[in-house]
Amino acid sequence: MSADVAPALLVDLYELTMADVYRREGMAARPATFSLFVRTMPRGRGYLVAAGLDDALSWLEEMRFGDREIAALERLGTFDPPFLDWLRGLRFTGSVRAVPEGTVVFAGEPILEVDAPLAEAQLAETFLLNQVTLQTTLATKAARCRHAAQGRTVVDFAMRRTHGIDAAMKLARVCRIVGLTATSNVAAADRYGIPATGTMAHSLVQAHERELDAFRAFAAAHADATVLLVDTYDSVRGIEHAIRVASECRDRGVRIRGIRLDSGDLASLSRLARRRLDEEGFDAVQVFASGGLDEYEIDRLVRVERAPIDGFGVGSSLAVSDDAPGLDTVYKLAEYDGRPVRKTSTGKETWPGAKQVWRAPDWSGDTIALAGEPAPAAGHVPLLVEVMRDGRRTDAGRRSLTEHREHFERGWTALPEALKDLRAPTAHPVGISEGLRELARAFDERQRSKEAT
Amino acid sequence: MSADVAPALLVDLYELTMADVYRREGMAARPATFSLFVRTMPRGRGYLVAAGLDDALSWLEEMRFGDREIAALERLGTFDPPFLDWLRGLRFTGSVRAVPEGTVVFAGEPILEVDAPLAEAQLAETFLLNQVTLQTTLATKAARCRHAAQGRTVVDFAMRRTHGIDAAMKLARVCRIVGLTATSNVAAADRYGIPATGTMAHSLVQAHERELDAFRAFAAAHADATVLLVDTYDSVRGIEHAIRVASECRDRGVRIRGIRLDSGDLASLSRLARRRLDEEGFDAVQVFASGGLDEYEIDRLVRVERAPIDGFGVGSSLAVSDDAPGLDTVYKLAEYDGRPVRKTSTGKETWPGAKQVWRAPDWSGDTIALAGEPAPAAGHVPLLVEVMRDGRRTDAGRRSLTEHREHFERGWTALPEALKDLRAPTAHPVGISEGLRELARAFDERQRSKEAT
Repeated sequence: MSADVAPALLVDLYELTMADVYRREGMAARPATFSLFVRTMPRGRGYLVAAGLDDALSWLEEMRFGDREIAALERLGTFDPPFLDWLRGLRFTGSVRAVPEGTVVFAGEPILEVDAPLAEAQLAETFLLNQVTLQTTLATKAARCRHAAQGRTVVDFAMRRTHGIDAAMKLARVCRIVGLTATSNVAAADRYGIPATGTMAHSLVQAHERELDAFRAFAAAHADATVLLVDTYDSVRGIEHAIRVASECRDRGVRIRGIRLDSGDLASLSRLARRRLDEEGFDAVQVFASGGLDEYEIDRLVRVERAPIDGFGVGSSLAVSDDAPGLDTVYKLAEYDGRPVRKTSTGKETWPGAKQVWRAPDWSGDTIALAGEPAPAAGHVPLLVEVMRDGRRTDAGRRSLTEHREHFERGWTALPEALKDLRAPTAHPVGISEGLRELARAFDERQRSKEAT
Repeated sequence: MSADVAPALLVDLYELTMADVYRREGMAARPATFSLFVRTMPRGRGYLVAAGLDDALSWLEEMRFGDREIAALERLGTFDPPFLDWLRGLRFTGSVRAVPEGTVVFAGEPILEVDAPLAEAQLAETFLLNQVTLQTTLATKAARCRHAAQGRTVVDFAMRRTHGIDAAMKLARVCRIVGLTATSNVAAADRYGIPATGTMAHSLVQAHERELDAFRAFAAAHADATVLLVDTYDSVRGIEHAIRVASECRDRGVRIRGIRLDSGDLASLSRLARRRLDEEGFDAVQVFASGGLDEYEIDRLVRVERAPIDGFGVGSSLAVSDDAPGLDTVYKLAEYDGRPVRKTSTGKETWPGAKQVWRAPDWSGDTIALAGEPAPAAGHVPLLVEVMRDGRRTDAGRRSLTEHREHFERGWTALPEALKDLRAPTAHPVGISEGLRELARAFDERQRSKEAT
């Protein structure tokens, strides 16, 4: 539906305004490095799952100012013809170093760095931030839901409550990366090759004269994919109706898949449903739960209540990562024309220079270092890899969703449980290399003397 | 970038599954009414600004299962050929009654109702919920920011932190409806005809040897549109540099527009900036503020601090409506084949029948009534109007963004201040008509006896 938005117009106006200044000053083609990172961890989050790189790289590949884009800029009336002509020739010709999607990252660590002519790297700011922020926020939330479910099925039912269609598509995508089971989103299932899933809505029950009629009609149409929603009028009676229809199906040699609870006390209703299903010999019929679930409620049901729930459908909370909908991401100039730079704004200081992040193999800590510095110790693993060179993706920039998923699984398995804690995770130590500290000191001294003149 | 998503695939799988059941049961073409409303107000919200209707209507107009959509559904492997053939002929042929965009609404009140053949109305659920939820959430947040600013300029700087591109576009759109001044989003400015705005990023300052050089270059390029960002290194010195460049510009007969504060103590820095600008004769140079602002912080700066700030740039908080990112919207069957229906799920009961919402002219309360009922009293105004009939927009469904904006302004002016309160708004009384109560009672009685058999 956002069908016809030209990638190159997906920028804040000031990216263009600054590109114009760079062009006038002869700075546009000089090399620059920008670093994209999260400034501070959202409250209660022990880790972040980096995502959104693939869409970021697509934007860099597709950014063009053709007739349509130039006409739009002319309508704004802000820019003069020499700048617009110059934009026509612009392509992204730089490189990108990034952590692979599905990598666990922490505040301060570059998720990606762009090495490119200044104007090209500047123009990328808005879109890269938008997609990495969105997808990292949602991937992190989805990973938390998966963690809470402790191996039970979790499916993405969030499409109706995401912030728009782009978010719905990307949510399904990142849920797949972090190992959720399936999505209700048909468009995303098709685009990303994700299993599609769904049950029925209350409207199906309401449109029939009686709940039983609705269940029978649904089972007749959907055989062993049948999951019956039992709470339209009264969950206890709904469970009995489901059992009656399951028995009728069994008589015809068909096994229904499960029932879904969507309101009321899910713990006690799931126990009741499990007991009644077992009593009637339906051990294989599963109990699914939905309705206002988030990682905290799933955790309560699984660990505190030990509710016999086989799978969770997660909607509203996952849709917007409701307890931490935003992420304090920034895209900051770290080097220009061979000169490392930083900002020293109150409370928003950044580190200069192109960087690398090193992770200790025993998860004792990460180190943010200059790109050129050696590993802090033997065995430490560099997280940033080159995913684009001279405007074209490298092999590392062409990984499939399945590869992202496998990459996530490896990291997830290794991630210490204390960091996964939903409420009071430990803080993963992230150190700053001596080289980086020294560079910052030298910059501040130089800049102080420059600005004083 | 979400470029090629087919509207008809923007559905939860179960919408299709249910449509298939309806088709098999001969129910698909029978008339139904669905009601879309917000179940409960988000905490601390005194009102909601309804939005998203235009995109909802576009989806209804564009929904088609052509070769591409059918091929996608075949790949899912869930549906049989008779259903897919049937989908090919499907168009939305129904009617929609809705509150115009920009109308203030409250929990329980239908924002829109769809009267259409059951299957058509069912398929619309996911997209209609998605867009109305997104746009109503963001319009409400934007209205709160506007209220806090008490007539000062508020601009949308949120594109980089919205949940994806669709959200960025729709945010700019609804900000316009609720009377924000401008957007930084170039694509949205072009699509919706909104003034585009922006200043400069820290990178521009960093890429120059000295802050002064950056300010001079920017002023040279942008003349009277120049807004100088003063906090890259030290805001106090930045203000002095801005004054120096403003003086140089004045010598050339150019007036710069303003300075922007983006970190630190915005109240005291704005006082310092205002004082220094005034001392140097720059009364007309404005002071803008940004950096982590939301309605609460704007309110504090305006009402408590009485900070001399002329305009606010709002980003992260507005981007995701961070204190209330979700909205408990539902789309519920209210009538099928002439039979009013409701659900009675624990804590999620709905009212049966097609509805109208009446508003008392003195804002003493709203009444949710049956569509056929008369006004509760003389002078009460009906909120729902027909915006689509037989699958085509009526004149009321073709209103422009400017008309939405004017409609919002009229309602906003009349809206009692107690409802606008940011922290402890009064609760607007929303009553249920006697006709609606009686219908619900009759339904429950009938359904109980049916289900008992």
